[in-house]
Amino acid sequence: MTILTPNPSYSVTIRLQLPNRAGMLASVVTAIAEAGGNLGRIDLIEQTLKVSVREITVNAYSSEHAEELVQVVKALDEIRFIDVHDRTFDLHRGGKISIQSKITPKNQDDLAMVYTPGVGRVCTAIAQDKTKVHQLTIKSNMIAIITDGSAVLGLGNIGPEAALPVMEGKAMLFKEFAGLDAFPICLDTQDVEEIVQTIKHIAPVFGGINLEDISAPRCFEIETRLQAELDIPVFHDDQHGTAIVTLAATINALKIVKKQIGKIRIVMNGAGAAGVAVARLLRQAGAEQILMCDSRGIISKDRPDLTTEKMEFASPESGSLADALKGADMFVGLSVANALTPEMVRSMASDRIVFAMANPIPEIQPELVEHDVAVMATGRSDYANQINNVLAFPGILRGAVDCRVPRITTEMHLEAAKAIAALVSPTELAPDFIMPSVFDPRVASAVSAAVKQAARQEGLAAE
Amino acid sequence: MTILTPNPSYSVTIRLQLPNRAGMLASVVTAIAEAGGNLGRIDLIEQTLKVSVREITVNAYSSEHAEELVQVVKALDEIRFIDVHDRTFDLHRGGKISIQSKITPKNQDDLAMVYTPGVGRVCTAIAQDKTKVHQLTIKSNMIAIITDGSAVLGLGNIGPEAALPVMEGKAMLFKEFAGLDAFPICLDTQDVEEIVQTIKHIAPVFGGINLEDISAPRCFEIETRLQAELDIPVFHDDQHGTAIVTLAATINALKIVKKQIGKIRIVMNGAGAAGVAVARLLRQAGAEQILMCDSRGIISKDRPDLTTEKMEFASPESGSLADALKGADMFVGLSVANALTPEMVRSMASDRIVFAMANPIPEIQPELVEHDVAVMATGRSDYANQINNVLAFPGILRGAVDCRVPRITTEMHLEAAKAIAALVSPTELAPDFIMPSVFDPRVASAVSAAVKQAARQEGLAAE
Repeated sequence: MTILTPNPSYSVTIRLQLPNRAGMLASVVTAIAEAGGNLGRIDLIEQTLKVSVREITVNAYSSEHAEELVQVVKALDEIRFIDVHDRTFDLHRGGKISIQSKITPKNQDDLAMVYTPGVGRVCTAIAQDKTKVHQLTIKSNMIAIITDGSAVLGLGNIGPEAALPVMEGKAMLFKEFAGLDAFPICLDTQDVEEIVQTIKHIAPVFGGINLEDISAPRCFEIETRLQAELDIPVFHDDQHGTAIVTLAATINALKIVKKQIGKIRIVMNGAGAAGVAVARLLRQAGAEQILMCDSRGIISKDRPDLTTEKMEFASPESGSLADALKGADMFVGLSVANALTPEMVRSMASDRIVFAMANPIPEIQPELVEHDVAVMATGRSDYANQINNVLAFPGILRGAVDCRVPRITTEMHLEAAKAIAALVSPTELAPDFIMPSVFDPRVASAVSAAVKQAARQEGLAAE
Repeated sequence: MTILTPNPSYSVTIRLQLPNRAGMLASVVTAIAEAGGNLGRIDLIEQTLKVSVREITVNAYSSEHAEELVQVVKALDEIRFIDVHDRTFDLHRGGKISIQSKITPKNQDDLAMVYTPGVGRVCTAIAQDKTKVHQLTIKSNMIAIITDGSAVLGLGNIGPEAALPVMEGKAMLFKEFAGLDAFPICLDTQDVEEIVQTIKHIAPVFGGINLEDISAPRCFEIETRLQAELDIPVFHDDQHGTAIVTLAATINALKIVKKQIGKIRIVMNGAGAAGVAVARLLRQAGAEQILMCDSRGIISKDRPDLTTEKMEFASPESGSLADALKGADMFVGLSVANALTPEMVRSMASDRIVFAMANPIPEIQPELVEHDVAVMATGRSDYANQINNVLAFPGILRGAVDCRVPRITTEMHLEAAKAIAALVSPTELAPDFIMPSVFDPRVASAVSAAVKQAARQEGLAAE
């Protein structure tokens, strides 16, 4: 049974009217707490001699639990329930980003400069020298976040409309963490050829492309083809963002257990877009023994069902995930909730590292193996050592757009991972602190600096 | 010879250092004025006992003229030229719009609501009921401004990159005048089928589509097909925006000359996207006699070179534009500079109306026929009666998105034109005041209200 903790993603704000006398608020608070609600802020909205109106924010652990809390409050004597808001839905209503004009045209003279006829001179300058589009338009700071809605979060193939809230959220993160303008494009097609053509057709406005939540194996072909056919950088975050942050976490975890990447045995579970990319980058960083597993166990050379990408990591060995894990130094999970048991973990080598990154519920709840692992990390913010792509993607695209690289290379991925790892100083480094906070203001600039440095060394920086 | 007047689209800011004594600034100002520059703001940047540094903003009438003015200043004794900025280019640098987050995630709790895991609940809600995308995402207020760069301003087929500054300018105007978020998409294809497919593929994010600067006759097919295949409104501004404002101007001009639209003879010059759309809307508004001309004269039924759209207006008559104009009540030009002569104008019926809307230089300079016309209008802001699309498009799309119409109908065009015309009150109406100012704050809301009203009457309003 998975342990559920109340969290702000299931957060409601309940407005109610209470008789204005001692003990009334306490009775509400007690009732909510007894029903398992986690109390947040309590506001006093208005107060007369007789009554108070208050807003109480409560975190629940599911939609049903939130509803249950509302019922508990409604059942209280002398309390008048006014209404309830779902805070998450309130925040998303109307969308999370907007377009802002940098200039406000106030009169005909302004219009004549920012619009016709003045704009014609700017157009002519670009028509004469196409590279000027990088200075004179939004292309200088604009990327596209593109999905086909085929593999959204853990929700699967929910389509382009339902994927849009995630892409908007990502656009917010690009802006907040790296100052990059990002616009979400949700494609109403899941055909590889149509996706590639559509993105090529809309590319002129963008300085870079961030692919998102496109299912494997189509995502591999789409990224490869786009990068070959476009002159702006293309980054599939589910692959490379995950790979970069996982490598960063690996670098620091290995410092704790004092092992070397070239000598450890790594078991990966999950051979989707993220799993394949992580395995590839770990190899580039020096890992020599990676055993890949998927839902059918070890990806064995003699299996008839392998994609090109799985073939790349196919092993002469065969067996179950449990077989693979015996004596392994490190587990990297990008698979599904509860794929790992405490017994499997205890069968690993000493000083074992477990990255259980399935979202939102990890391969194993950290509490269950608290004393059995040297380092534990997950994708969640409510446990130590969160391995979160947001540490990578804002800085990666920032650096790539700033120096106008035509593509993002493995060398840039490696340098970005090292830069993230280096933000945890030797004195801070600890089993429960191997990754910088996503709110650490140094992250995006450290990553973008690493990308730009690598770009210059590879001779790919245009600026 | 066309009369050229200095204007802010050729505006430079010259920074220079002058000896700090009486008469020095005067000598600069005099030199600029004598060279035909139109002086704007003069700033004092810094001043010591010996010298002043000033910035002088000057409007020129062309790039060459601006350069000439700089040379004049450089040649002055005792004046040290520091540098010169082209104000129009300065305003466009880095692009004119940006993406803004509506919420700033400050901590893990915020992230859990606006991004994962909370966003997953919003995605699920839309996956279960796709219409919720209109409430819970940017689709509620976002349109796309789409071009293929094939017919940009008067510049022609300059391609998608060079078209971007115009599309950004348009996005600014949508935001400033109607509060609509608009994102520019410049397509790297001019193939009708590819354009239609690309726009259909990116449609999920948008509440409406504004097509822009796509050459005729492709624009007709693209608009018709998109509107048939998409469930969001599609508006080709070059056609319908122009048609709406031209009809509005016609309504008010006819009040001045006291003629009725059903009885006048209209000569149109220019049978591109705008010309065809204007003729169609004038017909819908009751015009019965429209003689269309193009660069080869009257569009005569026996000409072998006619497109479907030109066939629609083909006449049994034939001859030149001059032939067509004899005895006509109204001229509508959407063609090229100087297509009209004073003689042609004087050959028209009494109380003649001339709309010379070629951009940036009209079919005839208004000064040349000042005393020969009852009403004269152009597309320019520096003459009376500017017929400018910006009076129409922000309000049209605002209304269409607000009430979620599946398409924008002729009835909506007609009502929008009437609403614009009605903003000039009977007491204000005059030969040199037939159109409201583009800065009149009532315009966009009057137009959007007219669109919504028409939508409800036609049963097309979803909200």
